[in-house]
Amino acid sequence: MQTLAIRGGHILRSDMTVTEADVLVDREAGDIVEIGAELGGDDELDADGCLVMPGLVNAHTHVAMTLLRGHADDKPLESWLREDIWPVEAALEPEDIEAGAALGALEMIKSGTTAFADMYFEIDRTADVVDRAGLRAVLGHGAISAGKDDAAARADIEESVEMARRLDGAADGRISTAVMPHSLTTVTPELLELAADEASEAGVPVHYHANETVDEVAPIVEERGQRPLEWARDLGMCRESDFFAHGVHLDEAEIDLLARRGTGVVHCPASNMKLASGMAPVQRLLDAGVVVGLGTDGAASNNDLDLFDELRDAAMLGKLAADDASAVAAPDAVRMATAGGADALGLNAGRIEAGAAGDLAVIDLDAPHLTPRHDLVSHLAYAARGSDVRHTICDGEVLMRDREVLTLDESAVMERASARAHDLLDRAGV
Amino acid sequence: MQTLAIRGGHILRSDMTVTEADVLVDREAGDIVEIGAELGGDDELDADGCLVMPGLVNAHTHVAMTLLRGHADDKPLESWLREDIWPVEAALEPEDIEAGAALGALEMIKSGTTAFADMYFEIDRTADVVDRAGLRAVLGHGAISAGKDDAAARADIEESVEMARRLDGAADGRISTAVMPHSLTTVTPELLELAADEASEAGVPVHYHANETVDEVAPIVEERGQRPLEWARDLGMCRESDFFAHGVHLDEAEIDLLARRGTGVVHCPASNMKLASGMAPVQRLLDAGVVVGLGTDGAASNNDLDLFDELRDAAMLGKLAADDASAVAAPDAVRMATAGGADALGLNAGRIEAGAAGDLAVIDLDAPHLTPRHDLVSHLAYAARGSDVRHTICDGEVLMRDREVLTLDESAVMERASARAHDLLDRAGV
Repeated sequence: MQTLAIRGGHILRSDMTVTEADVLVDREAGDIVEIGAELGGDDELDADGCLVMPGLVNAHTHVAMTLLRGHADDKPLESWLREDIWPVEAALEPEDIEAGAALGALEMIKSGTTAFADMYFEIDRTADVVDRAGLRAVLGHGAISAGKDDAAARADIEESVEMARRLDGAADGRISTAVMPHSLTTVTPELLELAADEASEAGVPVHYHANETVDEVAPIVEERGQRPLEWARDLGMCRESDFFAHGVHLDEAEIDLLARRGTGVVHCPASNMKLASGMAPVQRLLDAGVVVGLGTDGAASNNDLDLFDELRDAAMLGKLAADDASAVAAPDAVRMATAGGADALGLNAGRIEAGAAGDLAVIDLDAPHLTPRHDLVSHLAYAARGSDVRHTICDGEVLMRDREVLTLDESAVMERASARAHDLLDRAGV
Repeated sequence: MQTLAIRGGHILRSDMTVTEADVLVDREAGDIVEIGAELGGDDELDADGCLVMPGLVNAHTHVAMTLLRGHADDKPLESWLREDIWPVEAALEPEDIEAGAALGALEMIKSGTTAFADMYFEIDRTADVVDRAGLRAVLGHGAISAGKDDAAARADIEESVEMARRLDGAADGRISTAVMPHSLTTVTPELLELAADEASEAGVPVHYHANETVDEVAPIVEERGQRPLEWARDLGMCRESDFFAHGVHLDEAEIDLLARRGTGVVHCPASNMKLASGMAPVQRLLDAGVVVGLGTDGAASNNDLDLFDELRDAAMLGKLAADDASAVAAPDAVRMATAGGADALGLNAGRIEAGAAGDLAVIDLDAPHLTPRHDLVSHLAYAARGSDVRHTICDGEVLMRDREVLTLDESAVMERASARAHDLLDRAGV
């Protein structure tokens, strides 16, 4: 057994208490072996005066959209998609996906995220990046019917299924997959049902967007006489393994349904604010026992992939949504960013426990904004940011040591992403 | 003339365009002399590949409350104040104020803030810190009637007036002052009027909290048959020089009044979210032409003093408040964080123009989360954070060079603040 010992830190435990201990990780199995005193390893990481927490889980993103960071801000959702995003996405080449995914992977490693769920195109290229970067990911081809004829729409869903089958277990098991029909309104009912059936057959989750805007909920209710998630349930898309992004506009019956079924909700507070979609009822979801993770969504509606922002936004916006300053308390926000996201994605991660994945972020506490230290969980929710991450470990391997990323060439990744991004906008003619 | 040249950067101009240029600052006068090509100086700062922006203005804080960062989160405003904050504040000693102010000054310098407005106690101590740290500040003694007999309440207002007269112009003119009655509901009407009269006499602004919560607005409306700011106007507290914090709950008549009078509003989005106070109508204020700045409020309700968070929160929350993704666009948010705050505080700062104060922040753009560079103003609003600041300059002097703070001893400041913070809670018995 080749081991890695993280020495001398304050350890954030699953119950959100903090204790001083070392953490020993099995580098071959990629799991946490032991938490205790004076643990030596074949390799060691200094965590003296640091907080060791589970690696953060970005449970919904479109990672290659880092290429569009800052390309078109401050626009209403519909015209933003039609005028600024879709024309550019139509011009995307596989090399763009690779360049954008590498930029996103670099950004996530630098801000302590160790696992992410990605819905996009050309996911073979994203899978290559995940493999190289050393991250963990749930990948899926985002299939959409809008703008396609029946055959093309069906082929798109079939591609999502084929990709999910083929890539599941790639990158030494760090990649798992899902069938990813884009949303309840942008894929035809027949194809949503097909996606759910095929996912069930393949033994993988379905991941989709749902209940993001009022404009998307209303027509479903009117046309079907059902709330969107009741309809999704009837289509077979609310299984325990399934997870969807947003859930901004939910009624009590839908919340009950999610709680009973164990379907995961990925809360994307920054995206919901930036696109003026609304405030998700996060405290009500937590009260009901729903599995809730956090996601950045794509960089075009965020504009970064630093999950510490979402952690803070979730705690902050959850209070406004509940009209209660005690709602979405710091430990709940931290739990959503770690164990909650891992649970939604079906990963044995997000907790510092023997047997859980060796996915960790080590936070440097020696900073004015993290002084004094009355409450370290509060600091994670309200004061820490991605730049405070000192080391990032995934699957037992060190991806960043003392802020130096070991698996990717930072300058080369940034340079290539810049070049591809500017070329992409030129090609798209926007 | 001793000069400082900031060389090779992208300069954020007052009209929110970006041009490549050098900036020359007169270190003695503390002003910007020239923006142009190939400007040499007696001292030089490398800004190659960086964005040079006006130093950020934190237009409302209680800086020494950094000692209470993370002490009591996730509580409703009333019980939070009564059980967690006021008992601790009652135990504050002058040395605590100095230690907390130094920690806050350090944090602000490290995140590019060059000027702040502070309402608190023992402001002589804060003034000493401002002098030493090299920052610019508008300081005032926060006077409160609640819990005091008439004589003590009057003495408190008189102290605020006396401090404002005595400290105005301190620290080589970097300190200006205001008379600071705490709020429209925590100071008696007679003493509010006295504060306004004395401020007018002394030629300084009045700064106060107003229209923060629904619970605070309702009784004023009921008792006086006037909106709070109409009443404040009648008391003499809505002059052009005056500025108040929050303005969450405002009606159209109040917005008109503020626009006509030129009274400044300091928007504190993080505090308003964390205390579930509500969403300020920022786009409506901007549309009406009201002077709007941004503030962190105290670290106990934020929990940091990084104004880049407020910048992002203002842009994000402003969209939700307006139910419009095009509201509070990036340039407007950046303007509030710089020129808007400076205007509210009556400072000739917040703009990179010849004759304006030599208060600057130099942002390192060589980072994954600031790649690609489609739009640098967007990056400032949505992706940058305080840790991206490379150099901080105030009044023509370099306060931080290559992330090393030159005016304060970082370790000593953090150590002293930690010790005082823990001792303070022990003394307060909480």
